[in-house]
Amino acid sequence: MALLVLKFGGTSVADLDRIRNVAQHVKREVEAGNACAVVVSAMAGETNRLVALTREAAPLHDAREYDAVVSSGEQVTSGLLAITLQSMGIPARSWLGWQVPFRTDGAHGAARITEIPAAEIRARLLDRGEVAVVAGFQGIGPDNRITTLGRGGSDTSAVALAAAIGADRCDIYTDVDGVYTTDPRIVPKARRLEAISYEEMLEMASQGAKVLQTRSVELAMVRGVRVLVRSSFEAPDTLPAAGREEGRVPGTLVCGEDEIVEQQVVSGIAYAKDEAKVTLLGVADKPGVAARVFGPLAEANINVDMIVQNVTPDGKHTDMTFTVQTSDLERAMKVIEGARSDIGDFDLRGSTDVVKVSVIGIGMRSHAGVAARMFQALADKGINIEAISTSEIKISILIDAAYTELAVRTLHSLYGLDAD
Amino acid sequence: MALLVLKFGGTSVADLDRIRNVAQHVKREVEAGNACAVVVSAMAGETNRLVALTREAAPLHDAREYDAVVSSGEQVTSGLLAITLQSMGIPARSWLGWQVPFRTDGAHGAARITEIPAAEIRARLLDRGEVAVVAGFQGIGPDNRITTLGRGGSDTSAVALAAAIGADRCDIYTDVDGVYTTDPRIVPKARRLEAISYEEMLEMASQGAKVLQTRSVELAMVRGVRVLVRSSFEAPDTLPAAGREEGRVPGTLVCGEDEIVEQQVVSGIAYAKDEAKVTLLGVADKPGVAARVFGPLAEANINVDMIVQNVTPDGKHTDMTFTVQTSDLERAMKVIEGARSDIGDFDLRGSTDVVKVSVIGIGMRSHAGVAARMFQALADKGINIEAISTSEIKISILIDAAYTELAVRTLHSLYGLDAD
Repeated sequence: MALLVLKFGGTSVADLDRIRNVAQHVKREVEAGNACAVVVSAMAGETNRLVALTREAAPLHDAREYDAVVSSGEQVTSGLLAITLQSMGIPARSWLGWQVPFRTDGAHGAARITEIPAAEIRARLLDRGEVAVVAGFQGIGPDNRITTLGRGGSDTSAVALAAAIGADRCDIYTDVDGVYTTDPRIVPKARRLEAISYEEMLEMASQGAKVLQTRSVELAMVRGVRVLVRSSFEAPDTLPAAGREEGRVPGTLVCGEDEIVEQQVVSGIAYAKDEAKVTLLGVADKPGVAARVFGPLAEANINVDMIVQNVTPDGKHTDMTFTVQTSDLERAMKVIEGARSDIGDFDLRGSTDVVKVSVIGIGMRSHAGVAARMFQALADKGINIEAISTSEIKISILIDAAYTELAVRTLHSLYGLDAD
Repeated sequence: MALLVLKFGGTSVADLDRIRNVAQHVKREVEAGNACAVVVSAMAGETNRLVALTREAAPLHDAREYDAVVSSGEQVTSGLLAITLQSMGIPARSWLGWQVPFRTDGAHGAARITEIPAAEIRARLLDRGEVAVVAGFQGIGPDNRITTLGRGGSDTSAVALAAAIGADRCDIYTDVDGVYTTDPRIVPKARRLEAISYEEMLEMASQGAKVLQTRSVELAMVRGVRVLVRSSFEAPDTLPAAGREEGRVPGTLVCGEDEIVEQQVVSGIAYAKDEAKVTLLGVADKPGVAARVFGPLAEANINVDMIVQNVTPDGKHTDMTFTVQTSDLERAMKVIEGARSDIGDFDLRGSTDVVKVSVIGIGMRSHAGVAARMFQALADKGINIEAISTSEIKISILIDAAYTELAVRTLHSLYGLDAD
């Protein structure tokens, strides 16, 4: 017998047919002898509807009231799934955030979970065999009012609950069947990974592989929660029930690197199209100029990702290039213009026609030459690299967006990730 | 300054435009210096949508889960109204049933309020001048789970809250501007009553004048809460603000009879079309036969209203007529058929072509001859009376439904209720 947390997102509970499908997944686990807590999101579209209502009521509104309104979506789903499970003969009850409780800080609209006193819910799971259907995305703040965890918070709810009750695994059911070596839409030979380390998953998630919320992966890593990403769209009865001892599981296990038997040098290729490039041409090359550029951006809460600086041939000027989120580009350009008197004369250019491609793998730590092979392979295809940034387990490059597919496919083959 | 509870039903908060209209009503009271708690229902149609979802999930479902799902409707409205008030510069916050708390018994789906510890909400109303926007229809049971009070429970929420915080008055905003001497749709000369006693209102409500939930009137009577029935559809700024000392108020005040200066003998005429008639012809007239008829009906939880019994000319048989709710007719007929072996031989007939017309007035207690005048006036119009029942402040008759309008108009004129 295993103690499991299963999490189902909005598209998995979009209507009563989909909710019945979720109940079948839960039933399979229960019949295999597992104790299950199920974390659910709001029915697809419901959160957007509620958010729109609060915005229409007042564009600038009290986040505490926003939380009271928006949290009702998960409340409805948890009750409906409990009813559905009961109708199938499975003991179940719904738990709202304030009932568990998921204690959070007071940051309404973007709260952080501080504590989950899980004794009661754990006892009912294990002693009564009652399925706990938990409303995701919500908690209760120090002011005794409902808080929400911010968009995508249900993944975090699930991982936090798994840590609190000491679950053997947290299964995140989603609309894909796992984490792939890269986006299968542009690389048909992409393979599903059997396992991926927390660190790699964090890089994959923040690099544009939108399978799991970054925050939930961080929490899983810190608390050592094993997370299985799997599909809710496969017929429930074709999947093996999960036991404590797993054989080949459906989906991708996100876990500590010690649990990954055969480590690849490179596990995956990610790309992010929502990066924009800002270039300052001909800035006077003198001490402190970088601070005068990036100080105002930091003050404006604009996150800068890659930074490249080259001195011009005359040795007196420098060209600076950096990237920001596309949604921040316009604001970033204004901030730089506003700092022109401090920075001195320069020519300012912004562009969204760029893409960031990243090669990710914990094996890079012990393997040299990964970057060199990458640059050569891209050069062979005539792809110009506009910027480079690296971490211990990642190399990212910025290239012209027109070369996205070519670059990703080239690197996918280069590191032996193509399926047979 | 007065302490007020204002209650708005589903049609009054049907969309954001209507919610803004509600906020204008609240603003008027706040600007007049009154402290306000506002009780809201779910947006019109929302409760039906949620109930349908629970039924579709499983026809027979756990009432605790039903409550978790359905109570989300009021949760959304209370948050949206708080946001709207804040955007108008009025301090406000939402209160869910479990936050106030409205403590109830454990009868999920039809809970009764047992206690409202109102110290905190009262203090915030009076000391901070903060409007409390309270989700109606909901509470928290002994099991720490959400309960609902049953359909129309928001009226009861409002009256109970008014009693708990010691409000000067509970204003029930609805889609009519008060309680009328009879249904204006069939008697154009019907008049709005300035005031009506709790006892009369109870008779009016249970007789088919669906302005206030019977249960809320009973609670108001027991706790001495003054209730003002008024319209939410009149433009908010055309109504006078309510102070502790009222002049001529809009709407109808439901209060103790000592507060009604000029008492009428008859205050109103009510009619109920949802009564059905059951007749047993030729039952053997022997002791205990009535018990054999009404015992099984009581066991089946069928409420019997009027009962008439006549002995037939031969002196050996009796004809029995009684009325039940139309929705219970089919079941009542089956119950009687099932008891045929106990009752003996008879001929069974059921009919829904009847209406119950009632004349109501606390003045009847001290005035004789009200019934005699009624029977004569109806006889003059050729209307046959099929059954009669009376209480201290009410006379009800059962007649052929075809004569409804004629009978109501005749009685309305007879007792001097017609508007000039």
